[in-house]
Amino acid sequence: MIAKRLRQSLDQSICIRDIFEEGKKLAAIYGKENIFNFTIGNPSVEPPAIVNASMKEILDTEEALSLHGYTANVGYPEVRACIADYLNRKYDCHYDENGIIMTSGAAAAIVVICHTLLDYGDEVVTFAPYFWEYKSYVESVYGKLVPALCNMETLQPDPGTFEAALSERTRFVLINTPNNPTGAVYTEESLRMVTDILRRKQEEYGHPIYLVSDEPYRKLAYDMEVPYLTHFYENTIVVYSYSKALSIPGERIGYIAMEPEVQDMEDLFAGMTASMRYLGYVNAPSLQQRMLLKCVDASVDTRIYKETRDILYQGLQEIGYTCIHPDGAFYLFMKALEEDDSRFCETAKKERILMAPGTAFYGPGWVRISYCVPADTARKSLPAFQRLYDRYQK
Amino acid sequence: MIAKRLRQSLDQSICIRDIFEEGKKLAAIYGKENIFNFTIGNPSVEPPAIVNASMKEILDTEEALSLHGYTANVGYPEVRACIADYLNRKYDCHYDENGIIMTSGAAAAIVVICHTLLDYGDEVVTFAPYFWEYKSYVESVYGKLVPALCNMETLQPDPGTFEAALSERTRFVLINTPNNPTGAVYTEESLRMVTDILRRKQEEYGHPIYLVSDEPYRKLAYDMEVPYLTHFYENTIVVYSYSKALSIPGERIGYIAMEPEVQDMEDLFAGMTASMRYLGYVNAPSLQQRMLLKCVDASVDTRIYKETRDILYQGLQEIGYTCIHPDGAFYLFMKALEEDDSRFCETAKKERILMAPGTAFYGPGWVRISYCVPADTARKSLPAFQRLYDRYQK
Repeated sequence: MIAKRLRQSLDQSICIRDIFEEGKKLAAIYGKENIFNFTIGNPSVEPPAIVNASMKEILDTEEALSLHGYTANVGYPEVRACIADYLNRKYDCHYDENGIIMTSGAAAAIVVICHTLLDYGDEVVTFAPYFWEYKSYVESVYGKLVPALCNMETLQPDPGTFEAALSERTRFVLINTPNNPTGAVYTEESLRMVTDILRRKQEEYGHPIYLVSDEPYRKLAYDMEVPYLTHFYENTIVVYSYSKALSIPGERIGYIAMEPEVQDMEDLFAGMTASMRYLGYVNAPSLQQRMLLKCVDASVDTRIYKETRDILYQGLQEIGYTCIHPDGAFYLFMKALEEDDSRFCETAKKERILMAPGTAFYGPGWVRISYCVPADTARKSLPAFQRLYDRYQK
Repeated sequence: MIAKRLRQSLDQSICIRDIFEEGKKLAAIYGKENIFNFTIGNPSVEPPAIVNASMKEILDTEEALSLHGYTANVGYPEVRACIADYLNRKYDCHYDENGIIMTSGAAAAIVVICHTLLDYGDEVVTFAPYFWEYKSYVESVYGKLVPALCNMETLQPDPGTFEAALSERTRFVLINTPNNPTGAVYTEESLRMVTDILRRKQEEYGHPIYLVSDEPYRKLAYDMEVPYLTHFYENTIVVYSYSKALSIPGERIGYIAMEPEVQDMEDLFAGMTASMRYLGYVNAPSLQQRMLLKCVDASVDTRIYKETRDILYQGLQEIGYTCIHPDGAFYLFMKALEEDDSRFCETAKKERILMAPGTAFYGPGWVRISYCVPADTARKSLPAFQRLYDRYQK
């Protein structure tokens, strides 16, 4: 008796859910320590100590009724001002509190934006491979997600597929860099190409096409700065989550950020404010909002992720696998050793390696390795990867 | 450039938002203490001390990475089991953890249910007067809210309007007792009438019609127990929020509860689990979930609300106003002294009394008085209500 459209979507996503179930099953048989589970995207690095310390200080010093009370739908003004200040200092932007909306994480922010911008059948373009839930977010309000496949050798946006994906009904382009599932950081060159096309298309269609930058992994970039997208395109809406930077994904806290130049900014702000209510969010969790006043520039120790990445990337390259060097997030995209990436993942299970097939991310022929695992697990997995490789050399 | 359907809805709701803006404006002119603002539904009673104490204990004793990590989309199994146990003890039910889904409050829960049950154009019936956001929740996924006006003398459900509101496309009935905006607690007699009709209609249409009971005010009932709806109807889905019982509306924590008898229960559970992701909720805030392990049976001191209710109810009756005795929540519904309730609210502002017009809740001819204000404010407002009454006696 559930909705037909949901039933359809559930049936399609069974293969993805199966990956997680399989992990649990294998761990139960062989013991968790004997399984190389690279399917899970859970942060594995401790939250910075200031996170808990701040929460306790707030609980000790602030008046409980007001601390836990409703905030404005868009969040506490002082928290929004604090984030605007931080972004302005860090990325040379000019946000103010009237352009910041506190949300229950980045996923919530994207759904709020979909609800605000999309009428029935309106389109959102995203670069594939992409995080699989994007499709569900867009479809939750009867929009349509149109993928633009990246160049599958470089995992960078491709001008041909991108331009072909745009249409009169494109309301926004959803971009995710550092990328889940590929770990790619889109280069300045890629961003210039994307935004040049967008500017041209805005003119052609006579209405804004927003660029929504979903960047929960911004702080997880190694040996490089991730270009800040407002510097490339005026109509950029930034979506951020503290899930990865502070290792607090269960607490659900993030924001939407718009500079004053964003077209129809006041309308968007009013629409997003209403969408916070209409979708049942009401406001982002209040204690977590206040925590940010003290933790806005804190970060987990990203060297730990980097170490694991280096072990895996070097190890896999040495064995003979084709990987794109992942500059950010905690994902490594690797070419499957046969065309059918799902079958390749099945074969890998025989070596007790669990990976997500690229097809699940609209990235066929590849697999995603989530390396938010202890460095030691990564190290120990290499002989198993070697045996998997050998299976294909017969 | 925001979605057309959102634009339409924003334009319609301007009158409601104006109430809140007006309150701020008047407070700025005359001073907050000289305004009798009865428009706001914010809890005004301190959270029980155990709420903060529990959070601090959890922060001190639990491992931070796991504490703040993703939980299952439906929440921690032990928290769900704890809530099932509590409900079974308290209301003589037979929930188990597989029927409990932790949500970011009751609003989130309702949207999750809408997303799970409604295809385009499917209908939800609710008893009017109703909490105004219901319409937006249902429309966020392109459903249609059909109001069934209560008997406006008793504020209890009316069999005639209810039966007329049901159709082949009714997927669920949304019931809210104790009620916002009326403060009415629906009687056992009313519930039997409603569920008898529902059973008959289920049979006639050959598919389940769920009864979704939105009960954030369950613990705010005075001198009475609010009947528990599963005892009246098998296909009942209970939606709860701790916002009012613990005075923590900003933290966004609540649940959906289904007994094993609910038809297609496993499907519903799977659908709601997916909807938690598809709508961007992912999981209810993790620290707040764990807090409930220690606070599941805590409650604010409801005597404070009751005292204020008694002052207002008696005072207004003595002046000559017509009010229905409010048995729960912190709302009092009062008949306007003229047909046009919005104009009546305008006149009341001349006495510095702010109330919400019943029309905003689909309850024309009445006004809502939110009495989550200090008892002293209620007491001091009575001479102003007297002057307002006198204006209409000329």
